[in-house]
Amino acid sequence: MESFTLQIPTKIIFGEDTIPRIGEEVREYGKKVLLVYGKGSIKRIGVYDTVMASLQNAGLEIIEHGGVKPNPVLSHLREGIALAKKEKVDVVLGVGGGSAIDESKAIAAGAVMDDDVWKFYTGELPIENTLLENTLPVLSVLTVPATGTEMNGGTVVTNDETNQKYGFLDSHLCPKASILDPTVTYSVPLQYTAYAAVDCFSHMTEGYFTHDDEWAPIQDRFVEALARTVMDATERIMKDPNDYQGRATLMWSTSLAWNGLLTVGVRGCKIPAHLLEHPLSGLYDIAHGAGLSIVIPAWMTWSNRRGNKKIAQFAENVFGIHRDDPVQTGEKGIAALKAWFEKIKSPTSLSAADIPESDIEKIADFTLELAGVWDLPEYTKDIIIEIYKLCAV
Amino acid sequence: MESFTLQIPTKIIFGEDTIPRIGEEVREYGKKVLLVYGKGSIKRIGVYDTVMASLQNAGLEIIEHGGVKPNPVLSHLREGIALAKKEKVDVVLGVGGGSAIDESKAIAAGAVMDDDVWKFYTGELPIENTLLENTLPVLSVLTVPATGTEMNGGTVVTNDETNQKYGFLDSHLCPKASILDPTVTYSVPLQYTAYAAVDCFSHMTEGYFTHDDEWAPIQDRFVEALARTVMDATERIMKDPNDYQGRATLMWSTSLAWNGLLTVGVRGCKIPAHLLEHPLSGLYDIAHGAGLSIVIPAWMTWSNRRGNKKIAQFAENVFGIHRDDPVQTGEKGIAALKAWFEKIKSPTSLSAADIPESDIEKIADFTLELAGVWDLPEYTKDIIIEIYKLCAV
Repeated sequence: MESFTLQIPTKIIFGEDTIPRIGEEVREYGKKVLLVYGKGSIKRIGVYDTVMASLQNAGLEIIEHGGVKPNPVLSHLREGIALAKKEKVDVVLGVGGGSAIDESKAIAAGAVMDDDVWKFYTGELPIENTLLENTLPVLSVLTVPATGTEMNGGTVVTNDETNQKYGFLDSHLCPKASILDPTVTYSVPLQYTAYAAVDCFSHMTEGYFTHDDEWAPIQDRFVEALARTVMDATERIMKDPNDYQGRATLMWSTSLAWNGLLTVGVRGCKIPAHLLEHPLSGLYDIAHGAGLSIVIPAWMTWSNRRGNKKIAQFAENVFGIHRDDPVQTGEKGIAALKAWFEKIKSPTSLSAADIPESDIEKIADFTLELAGVWDLPEYTKDIIIEIYKLCAV
Repeated sequence: MESFTLQIPTKIIFGEDTIPRIGEEVREYGKKVLLVYGKGSIKRIGVYDTVMASLQNAGLEIIEHGGVKPNPVLSHLREGIALAKKEKVDVVLGVGGGSAIDESKAIAAGAVMDDDVWKFYTGELPIENTLLENTLPVLSVLTVPATGTEMNGGTVVTNDETNQKYGFLDSHLCPKASILDPTVTYSVPLQYTAYAAVDCFSHMTEGYFTHDDEWAPIQDRFVEALARTVMDATERIMKDPNDYQGRATLMWSTSLAWNGLLTVGVRGCKIPAHLLEHPLSGLYDIAHGAGLSIVIPAWMTWSNRRGNKKIAQFAENVFGIHRDDPVQTGEKGIAALKAWFEKIKSPTSLSAADIPESDIEKIADFTLELAGVWDLPEYTKDIIIEIYKLCAV
């Protein structure tokens, strides 16, 4: 076990009918709130009205910044920062899925600095920056669980001038409080629920598959427990989209999957699935989860062949597969996972997402650039292409 | 899954050579610190000197309150409160095991009120009390992992006039920061390490065995994962007391076992093992963990016979036992657990702890009183005696 510092300050308010409590939570951090949301789904499902009523009851002045895209873009983020500065808001409230909350965090950081917030994404400004200490407080009401952003300090944005989909992480961006009402996720289409499950799956397994600790039973077993749980919960939802237990369990799993708990104390965690996926959703505007179910089995195959024993461990402890040869065990596990992705109708090949194999070379250039930003030099262009070719089959 | 609110604000600083950071952490909360510790073991292992140097380097004024007993007593706690008031300290630092940190929390609460802090323990003052909002900030350096107090808002104290061992829990008592250096636990004797493992085991399983949710895969699987891990880590330590991985894994497990994570979202958690144990360590001054390994198998036997299916689930998922009949499966699991307690030399009967069976009637009176305080009316005197009789064999 490695040394670590862990603090997960976000207050989680979880359960049915909890959204009316958002006003009192926001009120603790100021009087004027920037309400950030997407394209209108929160109006359709009634969450917008509930939130507005609660904020108004708490006596808050509300400035609206709607229209966040599913993969939030820098141009819209910059409009949000300008609005937050002009209106001198005290606090930012993101209502929606990962995109609205991620953009909220970036607005909260950008609103208190003169420099361009995008520089945090590219690494031009160091994350250990005193500017981030002044970040406005962020709160969230989550309506589409997937990214885990409601309980961590991460934010991902796509630069719509350059198609770069980048992210960064800082504890000052952790939401002060996040409200999670599983019943508002009943209306998330099954297709997007599947993508959310894949995203959650990727978050919990990135560290598991890549850390190099010989013995990490807490972290490994928690991941295996959560992987089985996410599959069980997703299958309940596929049978009945209004199954409260399934929706609630998937929702809480997505928060736990990426809040730091599963990776503290292990060494050398990397995020290859995200490295390989970001260019796909950045270039083709497919759902992040759809891109992940394409690249994960391919990366696992590549890694298993290079002797990564965690693939076989996963096959054994999550799918109950055992062969004498660990590579064979791993292959069986990857096949089982791929079959499960297909069962929930998330694509497992480039062609299934209408991405031509002939684009691999072009995609790989974006991936290579991102590998530079994320300091993953072992992902050379040859290796990146090798893995994308495994996505083609 | 039930509705819940969860916030675990404690900053955990984990790893070798982290103790010299305590000064800067304490300094964030004030200039004058009350240093609370036990009977001198922290001086023997060098932690006292490291802490003092760090506090002095940070320019802090230090008031000492040593001599906390392993089961901290109210008379000593009251002396600490008087000292904290007289010296007008800003912050309380507990250094040691659960006792020093529990007493620190109670001093921090008592130092800012005129009323008697013991009333929180007895329930005479409601826990939802604005007095607790003023609690002084508490920090901790943990040297004996067991109780989980370093990452929660709980405190347990024994009234040395009445022998009542009571506790209460409030989020305002959560340490602001806790430093956990596994290397300082090398010197914890194997006997006390075993008691710590039992204590940790009891914390994670109290909710698991008693919640009444039909489907709680996150919580149940996390507990099963942690139970297996605590056993594995303890066995590594028994083989080599200086095994860093074993010590570190046990230390982090004890924090996770009782910080709220394992019981959020499940309904009806109770703490029967603690109910049955507190009178034992309160009356006979045995280690809390020793008392727990006596009462846990007895309570499990009683509960298994009454049809609690979680006992069989535990036997299957932790010990890999399966019989067609769930009661039989449960019995095999209890036998395996009892054998494991005996393997690590923690007592599993009253006689092994020199508690005469003839005292059961007297002990039960204390337990019944505590059942009233903790609102566990299903534990009638007959039932309590029935379970203690199962501890006699």
